[in-house]
Amino acid sequence: MQYMPVTSSMFLIAETREQPMHVGGLQLFVPRAGQTAEELADEWQAAFTSGCEVSEVFRRRPAQPFSLVGSLAWSVDDDIDIHYHVRRIALPKPGRIRELFHYVSLNHSTLLDRSRPMWEAHLIEGLADGRLALYTKIHHSLVDGVSALRLLERTLSTDPEDRTGTTPWDTRLFTKKTAATVEIDGLAPAPPDEAPEQRTDAETGGLFDELRKSIGAVADVAGQVAGMVPAVGHVAWKAARDHDFISPGYFAPRSMFDVPIGSARRFAANHWSISRLRAVAEALDVTLNDVVLAMCSSALRGYMIDNGTLPSEPLIAMVPVSMHVGGEDDGNAVSAVMANLATNDPDPAARLQTLVASMRASKNVIRGLRPLQALALGAATIAPLAFMSIPGFVNYTPPQFNLVISNIPGPTQQLYWNGARLDGVYPVSIPTSGNALNITLTSTADQMGFGLIGARAQLPSLQRLLDHLEDGLVELEAIAQRTDQPS
Amino acid sequence: MQYMPVTSSMFLIAETREQPMHVGGLQLFVPRAGQTAEELADEWQAAFTSGCEVSEVFRRRPAQPFSLVGSLAWSVDDDIDIHYHVRRIALPKPGRIRELFHYVSLNHSTLLDRSRPMWEAHLIEGLADGRLALYTKIHHSLVDGVSALRLLERTLSTDPEDRTGTTPWDTRLFTKKTAATVEIDGLAPAPPDEAPEQRTDAETGGLFDELRKSIGAVADVAGQVAGMVPAVGHVAWKAARDHDFISPGYFAPRSMFDVPIGSARRFAANHWSISRLRAVAEALDVTLNDVVLAMCSSALRGYMIDNGTLPSEPLIAMVPVSMHVGGEDDGNAVSAVMANLATNDPDPAARLQTLVASMRASKNVIRGLRPLQALALGAATIAPLAFMSIPGFVNYTPPQFNLVISNIPGPTQQLYWNGARLDGVYPVSIPTSGNALNITLTSTADQMGFGLIGARAQLPSLQRLLDHLEDGLVELEAIAQRTDQPS
Repeated sequence: MQYMPVTSSMFLIAETREQPMHVGGLQLFVPRAGQTAEELADEWQAAFTSGCEVSEVFRRRPAQPFSLVGSLAWSVDDDIDIHYHVRRIALPKPGRIRELFHYVSLNHSTLLDRSRPMWEAHLIEGLADGRLALYTKIHHSLVDGVSALRLLERTLSTDPEDRTGTTPWDTRLFTKKTAATVEIDGLAPAPPDEAPEQRTDAETGGLFDELRKSIGAVADVAGQVAGMVPAVGHVAWKAARDHDFISPGYFAPRSMFDVPIGSARRFAANHWSISRLRAVAEALDVTLNDVVLAMCSSALRGYMIDNGTLPSEPLIAMVPVSMHVGGEDDGNAVSAVMANLATNDPDPAARLQTLVASMRASKNVIRGLRPLQALALGAATIAPLAFMSIPGFVNYTPPQFNLVISNIPGPTQQLYWNGARLDGVYPVSIPTSGNALNITLTSTADQMGFGLIGARAQLPSLQRLLDHLEDGLVELEAIAQRTDQPS
Repeated sequence: MQYMPVTSSMFLIAETREQPMHVGGLQLFVPRAGQTAEELADEWQAAFTSGCEVSEVFRRRPAQPFSLVGSLAWSVDDDIDIHYHVRRIALPKPGRIRELFHYVSLNHSTLLDRSRPMWEAHLIEGLADGRLALYTKIHHSLVDGVSALRLLERTLSTDPEDRTGTTPWDTRLFTKKTAATVEIDGLAPAPPDEAPEQRTDAETGGLFDELRKSIGAVADVAGQVAGMVPAVGHVAWKAARDHDFISPGYFAPRSMFDVPIGSARRFAANHWSISRLRAVAEALDVTLNDVVLAMCSSALRGYMIDNGTLPSEPLIAMVPVSMHVGGEDDGNAVSAVMANLATNDPDPAARLQTLVASMRASKNVIRGLRPLQALALGAATIAPLAFMSIPGFVNYTPPQFNLVISNIPGPTQQLYWNGARLDGVYPVSIPTSGNALNITLTSTADQMGFGLIGARAQLPSLQRLLDHLEDGLVELEAIAQRTDQPS
């Protein structure tokens, strides 16, 4: 029996029926020439049920008895009931994206079975546009959202002729050593004078540790908080001189997003061409991440105006950032910053300015910190998440941020599964009590996919946020246009 | 705010993620001549989303804050998010009954959202045989399984030309007074000298009470237990003289069915022609209910032999029975008996004899009781159900029965929804920790439908029970044949 590190068990402990703690991903594939979506689904299902050796991460479940106190341990199943984990379904006509999102909404709402390895893969046929969808769902105690997307991507190939497509749980994938080093917006903190805390094999389990290392990505911040909280006293608060910097002690305004939630979810997603986003970023001399945050800011403002709930103070977003500090043995250093979304400002140009200033201030603070201090700052920033499942906490405690906006770097090359082209990836993350909306983004070679997941009863017509995101980008393009004009 | 009677709240309190407390029903319909299943689904979906006035039972949800102590209350929603409650989906090819059962298995495994009225209706297309399936799921705190099936049947018509098909939640259905009086095997206890306890409107809510009365059916026994437990001391144990009578103090053997369970379910169902069952019953001078219990006995024996888990002692089934005692104002009197399934006996004829003797003995005991005493006996019989969700209870306490077998009388006439013929009804009930399998039966005009629902991990290849049920009937037919021969 392997004892679980607290960074895993906290997701089991914090989970309630209103707040399932699984992350998901929706991928869309265009079948290869001459192949129907149904044929592609047949091929995929055959791979899924081929009886390949299932890696340990996909065979772990919480050992019985599960209790809220004491240590939690993993138990590893020898047999997997693959027909339970892998599901195939068809959308009803007319098979629009709307029907697909509805299916994902409903299936993201339900808890995973704790008496078996906590993951599911859904092959979804019936899209009128001929594509095949793959929705996957995995418990956050097993892997974080970033790692889950990486696992899916590792089954894909850059070669459209490659026909060796396998499954994310194929043990053969786990023997490859990849050393992806990913950064968001090139955050590069001061060189370390103390090594980031190393988790030992005993704490994390060998394969899991290997997985974490081999993926080497921006880890989901929430997954790291619990072990970091004790270090919070060491944060160099002196660094926080900047007026635009929002420190963890700041209270965000009350909004429609920091409310207790039910278990039902609403999912909406769309993508925007990266070249469009990059053109704006270059014209305005901001980062790609600033552009997507500004789109979110504009969209949230529009959505709250629609609902008559716009607060007079600006919304604050918590944004996880990576701080990759060296070689592949350094582990993952992650922090989080608070972004002032300036949603109270009707002027898009002024909003962008406030937002960019707050992001830059936060990043300057982090750059001035030692890595462990930066981690601790991140931990303090997201610490409230750990208390969200305590009844009454959300009602009686002012929020420190209103939502999480997370940008996960994706593959930069076109990818294929047995020749079927990956045409879109949309993360499906975790709303919580107090954070009724989560926006997570990830990219493919040429697109930025926005995945919006919200508490269904609390966030009516969430899909309108998509229109407002487009409006937000159009606003930014107009500002970029004016900036390019000779003045 | 309406306070909930304990007969409702107990299902919310006993519910865990491993033991969801909703009941379900699967109905199959043959579209009318010239109509496809998809067109029928369109028609049904239009009725479902037509915006008819939704009756109060379908708008109730547990009021916040929900707590394990103190009184629970209902809150009544004014608006219903009908696109959440009503779902439409298609089975993947080849669209066999197997794919349908898999869909029901997966969807019966998941908890209902407590922050909205706790019911769902799934329209399922894609069956290769051209039929349309309707799977419904409703929380046991709202209605019991019998009432749920009755609600569905009330939307149907005996007239194939009727095109006024509506939804179970249409308030117009609730103004009709129907006085269905249903009995199983004509159990008629001694006339009452004290009226069965009446629930007041304040306790149960007016419409709910009206619903209960207007349905007037054999209520699910478990729904009645909690209020009855205090009366258990009054049971006339003196009546229990019969050697074949299994009293509530009896301990059943340990079996593969009385184990702790996970949340995943496995559903299997099939139907047998009532004329086949009736021929056996008449030839052997037993009741129809005895025949189906004998089929279950044989099937369980075969299934346990397959799994190498046959106990040397006979399995004991708890069988709810109705005791309708008078006019429609008498409420529902319900009891339960223990049936000795004689699964340890290899001889089918001897098994039948033991089973019938134990059923007759139990019924004789009940006939000798006053109605309130009979209710109390029923309560004592099923009392252990109330303790099943206590951790460790199942592991350390010998079972009093191994499974529940429930026979719910169905309609005796052919029924239609907008001309689509009801071709099969299969109940989907509740396995619990300690009762990993539940068998619930119900009939249409000419068929007896068996719905088997079990804990997935604990009951492998549950669908083999269906073959064993057929084998059991063939055995009984052979005995009937021999009996009919002149000797």
